[in-house]
Amino acid sequence: MKKVDYMAIAEKAMIQIKKGAFLTVKSGDDLNTMTIGWATMGFIWRKPIFMIAVRDSRYTFGLIEKASDFTVSVPSTDMHDEIMFCGTKSGRDVDKYAACNMKTVNAQHVKSPIIDTPGIHLECRIVYKTAMDPSSLAEEYHKLYPEKDYHTLYFGEILDCYDIG
Amino acid sequence: MKKVDYMAIAEKAMIQIKKGAFLTVKSGDDLNTMTIGWATMGFIWRKPIFMIAVRDSRYTFGLIEKASDFTVSVPSTDMHDEIMFCGTKSGRDVDKYAACNMKTVNAQHVKSPIIDTPGIHLECRIVYKTAMDPSSLAEEYHKLYPEKDYHTLYFGEILDCYDIG
Repeated sequence: MKKVDYMAIAEKAMIQIKKGAFLTVKSGDDLNTMTIGWATMGFIWRKPIFMIAVRDSRYTFGLIEKASDFTVSVPSTDMHDEIMFCGTKSGRDVDKYAACNMKTVNAQHVKSPIIDTPGIHLECRIVYKTAMDPSSLAEEYHKLYPEKDYHTLYFGEILDCYDIG
Repeated sequence: MKKVDYMAIAEKAMIQIKKGAFLTVKSGDDLNTMTIGWATMGFIWRKPIFMIAVRDSRYTFGLIEKASDFTVSVPSTDMHDEIMFCGTKSGRDVDKYAACNMKTVNAQHVKSPIIDTPGIHLECRIVYKTAMDPSSLAEEYHKLYPEKDYHTLYFGEILDCYDIG
């Protein structure tokens, strides 16, 4: 495990995130991993911040609303099948870890674990969240929400960022 | 002027933004430039997105609330004095451009101009905004708001990103 600067890996991470990365959230005994394709990173409130978005229709939404943290695992090996599975199946219906033969391992600073896979891993505690207000969204973007299941935006303070080879 | 990929310059830009960059907003005939030290960048709504934050006490707040776009100019030369001036003086009281001997030039895709200086420039149209709800903010972050002048977060779709040498 090699500590890395979150902005130094921003370009590399974002290229993979656009293809798919894993968002893992644990709340009490409930655990789920979903695929994300969107994120922003930067510096707000004098802290390194990673922002993710979860639609309110997602199983993960119920978990993250009660959780204090999340992790993002950006794989460096080919995990196309796992990314597709975790992006199309719901943790309500299937055990994604068994189906994908994926394991989690404990994070260093947060309750949510990381995916046990080579890549960049971010551990984030939720410091701000905001449910999207459709009336403030650009008109052309509404086509992304045919089911009206708008995202809630979660701002995570990056507590750790490392590369597992 | 050299077109650059917004994520390829993310690390370099964020290092300077933390030291200070210029946010320029034009609304009707009103124009102002303020210093920003916080931002995030990434990919949301299938678009490259740059997020900035403006406190509701700022002169710029009145402008950007009516504006459709903004620009961010990240200087590559030493503009410490201009950054300090534009971060501590208000456009309500002084003509920042005259005081700093700074000029603006027209942007390519938006009404807000850019600062005429070497560096990275981003042209963004506002596609989403949200006023911060203090009740959703981590307790320790409240010390950043002794005057209760919370930020509004503006999400800009990056229409252009280029380096002026």
